[in-house]
Amino acid sequence: MGDSTRVKVGIVGASGYGGVQLVRLIADHPHLELVYVGGESSAGKAFSDLYPHMDLATNLTIETVDPETIGDRCDVVFLSLPNGLAWKMTPTLLDKGCKVLDLSADYRFSNLDTYQAWYGGDRTDKEVAATAVYGLPELYRDRIKDAQLVGCPGCYPTASLLALAPLLKQGMIVPESAIIDAKSGTSGGGRKAKVNLLLAEADNSFAAYGVASHRHTPEIEQICSDLAGHEVLVQFTPHLIPMVRGILSTVYANLRDPGLVREDLVTIYTAFYRNCPWVKVLPAGVYPQTKWAMGSNMCYLGVEIDQRTDRAIVMSGIDNLLKGQAGQAIQCLNLMMDWDETLGLPQLGFYP
Amino acid sequence: MGDSTRVKVGIVGASGYGGVQLVRLIADHPHLELVYVGGESSAGKAFSDLYPHMDLATNLTIETVDPETIGDRCDVVFLSLPNGLAWKMTPTLLDKGCKVLDLSADYRFSNLDTYQAWYGGDRTDKEVAATAVYGLPELYRDRIKDAQLVGCPGCYPTASLLALAPLLKQGMIVPESAIIDAKSGTSGGGRKAKVNLLLAEADNSFAAYGVASHRHTPEIEQICSDLAGHEVLVQFTPHLIPMVRGILSTVYANLRDPGLVREDLVTIYTAFYRNCPWVKVLPAGVYPQTKWAMGSNMCYLGVEIDQRTDRAIVMSGIDNLLKGQAGQAIQCLNLMMDWDETLGLPQLGFYP
Amino acid sequence: MGDSTRVKVGIVGASGYGGVQLVRLIADHPHLELVYVGGESSAGKAFSDLYPHMDLATNLTIETVDPETIGDRCDVVFLSLPNGLAWKMTPTLLDKGCKVLDLSADYRFSNLDTYQAWYGGDRTDKEVAATAVYGLPELYRDRIKDAQLVGCPGCYPTASLLALAPLLKQGMIVPESAIIDAKSGTSGGGRKAKVNLLLAEADNSFAAYGVASHRHTPEIEQICSDLAGHEVLVQFTPHLIPMVRGILSTVYANLRDPGLVREDLVTIYTAFYRNCPWVKVLPAGVYPQTKWAMGSNMCYLGVEIDQRTDRAIVMSGIDNLLKGQAGQAIQCLNLMMDWDETLGLPQLGFYP
Amino acid sequence: MGDSTRVKVGIVGASGYGGVQLVRLIADHPHLELVYVGGESSAGKAFSDLYPHMDLATNLTIETVDPETIGDRCDVVFLSLPNGLAWKMTPTLLDKGCKVLDLSADYRFSNLDTYQAWYGGDRTDKEVAATAVYGLPELYRDRIKDAQLVGCPGCYPTASLLALAPLLKQGMIVPESAIIDAKSGTSGGGRKAKVNLLLAEADNSFAAYGVASHRHTPEIEQICSDLAGHEVLVQFTPHLIPMVRGILSTVYANLRDPGLVREDLVTIYTAFYRNCPWVKVLPAGVYPQTKWAMGSNMCYLGVEIDQRTDRAIVMSGIDNLLKGQAGQAIQCLNLMMDWDETLGLPQLGFYP
Repeated sequence: MGDSTRVKVGIVGASGYGGVQLVRLIADHPHLELVYVGGESSAGKAFSDLYPHMDLATNLTIETVDPETIGDRCDVVFLSLPNGLAWKMTPTLLDKGCKVLDLSADYRFSNLDTYQAWYGGDRTDKEVAATAVYGLPELYRDRIKDAQLVGCPGCYPTASLLALAPLLKQGMIVPESAIIDAKSGTSGGGRKAKVNLLLAEADNSFAAYGVASHRHTPEIEQICSDLAGHEVLVQFTPHLIPMVRGILSTVYANLRDPGLVREDLVTIYTAFYRNCPWVKVLPAGVYPQTKWAMGSNMCYLGVEIDQRTDRAIVMSGIDNLLKGQAGQAIQCLNLMMDWDETLGLPQLGFYP
Repeated sequence: MGDSTRVKVGIVGASGYGGVQLVRLIADHPHLELVYVGGESSAGKAFSDLYPHMDLATNLTIETVDPETIGDRCDVVFLSLPNGLAWKMTPTLLDKGCKVLDLSADYRFSNLDTYQAWYGGDRTDKEVAATAVYGLPELYRDRIKDAQLVGCPGCYPTASLLALAPLLKQGMIVPESAIIDAKSGTSGGGRKAKVNLLLAEADNSFAAYGVASHRHTPEIEQICSDLAGHEVLVQFTPHLIPMVRGILSTVYANLRDPGLVREDLVTIYTAFYRNCPWVKVLPAGVYPQTKWAMGSNMCYLGVEIDQRTDRAIVMSGIDNLLKGQAGQAIQCLNLMMDWDETLGLPQLGFYP
Repeated sequence: MGDSTRVKVGIVGASGYGGVQLVRLIADHPHLELVYVGGESSAGKAFSDLYPHMDLATNLTIETVDPETIGDRCDVVFLSLPNGLAWKMTPTLLDKGCKVLDLSADYRFSNLDTYQAWYGGDRTDKEVAATAVYGLPELYRDRIKDAQLVGCPGCYPTASLLALAPLLKQGMIVPESAIIDAKSGTSGGGRKAKVNLLLAEADNSFAAYGVASHRHTPEIEQICSDLAGHEVLVQFTPHLIPMVRGILSTVYANLRDPGLVREDLVTIYTAFYRNCPWVKVLPAGVYPQTKWAMGSNMCYLGVEIDQRTDRAIVMSGIDNLLKGQAGQAIQCLNLMMDWDETLGLPQLGFYP
Repeated sequence: MGDSTRVKVGIVGASGYGGVQLVRLIADHPHLELVYVGGESSAGKAFSDLYPHMDLATNLTIETVDPETIGDRCDVVFLSLPNGLAWKMTPTLLDKGCKVLDLSADYRFSNLDTYQAWYGGDRTDKEVAATAVYGLPELYRDRIKDAQLVGCPGCYPTASLLALAPLLKQGMIVPESAIIDAKSGTSGGGRKAKVNLLLAEADNSFAAYGVASHRHTPEIEQICSDLAGHEVLVQFTPHLIPMVRGILSTVYANLRDPGLVREDLVTIYTAFYRNCPWVKVLPAGVYPQTKWAMGSNMCYLGVEIDQRTDRAIVMSGIDNLLKGQAGQAIQCLNLMMDWDETLGLPQLGFYP
């Protein structure tokens, strides 16, 4: 039944939101064929038992997770698991010759001590981890092209770093002044039954969480430090928006050069991202609506300067499950396979 | 700049929700090229001034509406206007050789007296109107293939008729017992500023409207009568759901044959729609979530029989802006052009 | 610390949504004093640990559930527990002299066989159950006044029965033609972590559930039969609305007398409920918005007649957690205590 | 019919959201009697034609707006009008001996040049304006007690200033480092039909607006400057949350003293607001949910310190229509009348 010219893909952890996005995207991708979906808690069920509308996408049954057999059957494996599980099976998958894209935090950190300080665990895969590339194509495109193992960024870091990168890279701001006030729809919490994510609790309410302690902080700081050329601490505060999909990061930073106007920022950002098909810099005075990105892999950036305070204010809007997760993973795979970076990915969200 | 092998398409009334869906769908369609977008109130603006995220789909400017010049430039014209405007320009467009797909009520009625009783106006296009075909492909596929002019169904009638058609066509129910309790997201009200559709009013509230008086009633009855072979009155009650997209119609009808069980209905419905790629009959005991259809042209049908009351209960879930409007119009165009009925249309909604 | 002139109240199952409403209502009630909150899973926590905004209402700590000691400390006990638990402790509470108001299904049925057929369990409290009164004051006010034990109605039955009662009581409709298409916000599912009630799943979606099988059906039928004077079966279909609070029931029934107009129904309903401070019959042509009832104990009724089909269509809007649950329980208690029926209950919802 | 012992109250601009809240609050207030509701666009309609659920609150008809006759009939007048209208009628109302509470921006500024720079207009009421008191009771209680004219604060300034005041007053932060990232439900936009506030547009989307240019900025700065003792500029960015009611302000500021921990802030804030019944400082580690404040006049404050960056992060949650508007106006009136500050105002929001 399979199509021998297509690349064979497996998904471990297919039943969550990252998984179901991947199933959808792979079904629409011209060069990929889904051959394996795995997950311990749902093993034995048809994928379409969990998602009845998805029987058009796949008739696969969810299987148990055995890295050896996955490695034998797949060319590419997406790991969409809770933090701390991917690193236990990745070495086997790589040994089998698979390309591995991990959607958890396990391969995002160049310094495993940082990982262990924030996520715990006792990593025994240090050599493998050292080969992982941070999967943010707009910053690390060339390295991703050559990678066998990609640690896909978190949703908040994706939105926040795309907003900050041009300013940091070009030394335009005081790095330690950076404040990231981020807001996410509740699908970022995954498909787990938690009381605080019930519609009855979360709808028509808004709150911060993980203030001064969220685990995406060190991930953002790692890349900011890389961009700035020295260690940078940032302020990062996530909030929960009463909606399903979307992240908006509002980033504040003090300008080194007080003479800039917002049109300068539009020019600078447009130039910085000129070869990036998945970043759209909006015209001066236009700020991103997360809805514009919903169902799309696009990141929309709006830039502003407050001339009274000499601060840059940059807003970044993405679909947390696409550019913030599964879409970006496919974008990375496109690069790893030397395909067009846009292949098989949705550009236009449905609006409204 | 154009692609000479593509069919040239125009949209009149491009700034509303129907229009923006069509722009999106045409951009993703392999055989269509959008060459004209028109609208009086927004004429002179770039389409992407209205929808900044859509500059990837088109760089056209909205033009004034002159049927002569539209007819010269386009092979196909979609009319996405308030009721009562399409019939004034359609004869000219047909004279110019265009295929016309009207999304308003103007060409839905085989009997113009019914139209005028419910919508008013003094129609002078009776000969043209007599050539119009009702654009519900699951019931009128062959006639649509030969049509130059299609009156695309309303959103509620689409959902309701797909739920009722097998029962009526096969004489399984008492037609006058049919009750359609329908619910729609607020995008069905269009992109017009109305107080009752403000988020602050409509969110976290639910109500009926147009009880015993909604103008989709005669449209539903016309097709039900055609299916039943005699005149049928139905009860139709629309409600507003506090959400953006989606319709669920819950249809009740008394069975003529009390011995049926729900598995029989699954069999009957599956057979009735076996050649219909855009209708999915769900397994026994599974009822449609409108979210499954969101962003897709699919109609999901769930069937049930209450053996205590000998009633059939059929639930129909669609995206009101796709299968209920713009998607179905593209589906009709595919048939009119003798293309595959599924061409260029999204099958899988993004979930969640 | 207590106020010796106030009636001492306990709540068993205080941590759920019914419980938290009761705590709020009791805090605002001039004659009640909350002296006990109980619940096994949260025992030992301060109530305000669960609901930090509620420390203004009570500084009680949640205790374990021992009917003997509850009975010693309380004059009145509200039981807000899953079905099947109340009947195990109610006889003890009654023996201790408490008035008991049960918010579960345990004491709603005059025929325990019906209860056991739909809810299971092996009831050993038949004599006690025979003394219970169904707590819908608009229909059973006098019996509630004399009751020691009240089985408070379900949320759907409350909305549905208030819509149907005048028609049934006065023999105006064909009882077996009654169809109740009901819709509820997700708080009706309680404060339990369930995947299908997550905001990411339930928001922007709409679906039916429990079609032809929901356990509120026999409860509705019991009262309809009482009103009609003979056994009545009704069609009842619940749906989930993507919002927090509110139920709308849309009820259809065939009129016996085809000559009626909607103004007649307004007159009949207004007369029927003229002594009912918690039912508001809307003017002809006005249909209830559930939002009008949000935060209030009011039931809003809108009536319509379709003269084409000779059907009555009645819409009933309530706050499922107040008139549909905790508010109605307080209303019953007011009657049991011979206080004004409106005492301590909110009349006006906040809008919007 | 009136109650001669009650204070006679009029509302100009009663049909908007501020107006309908006031009608509700006045109906529940033991010492107030609503005798006049005015508004040009709805004059001649019964108030309950606009809000059918409110006929329990008032049976008044909306009248045209004539300051002379309003002044003759009322002791107290609330002005709930678009900016720029209140100052034209206030002098007449004061001459008639009324107490006036203005909910617009007209009387919020001690320096009318600032008002005119941001709001326009050519104010001719400078002497009257000089007598106005800024109606934030937590900061200006004594002055409000003696005022005849109160300019009630904007919704964002209320939330933001209550978060910042203790830090500024006690010199704990670098004032110019203050960044206010504020988020509001869409009811803040009022009951006006605007496309961007339609549910279909605003639901499931999130965006900033008025970045570096919102008119609440100078209002916040005026009070911050007063607190700091010198002129202060702040960064203020509002966002729209896809929900009806509620504001959360997340405030960042650099600490002067790096040794502080969050428990210190809890202590400091609790002391600062110890005589303020409408401010609740949450325990360390608890951050406000806007839902806790919904339907209540309470402001919930959560405080945090990031010891890595030496920043204070304070979150403030209110109901934008109560503490942020109509509730605070009643709170001010209670003070002006020398009544208890909490009289007639809801403390506990309904949850969920």
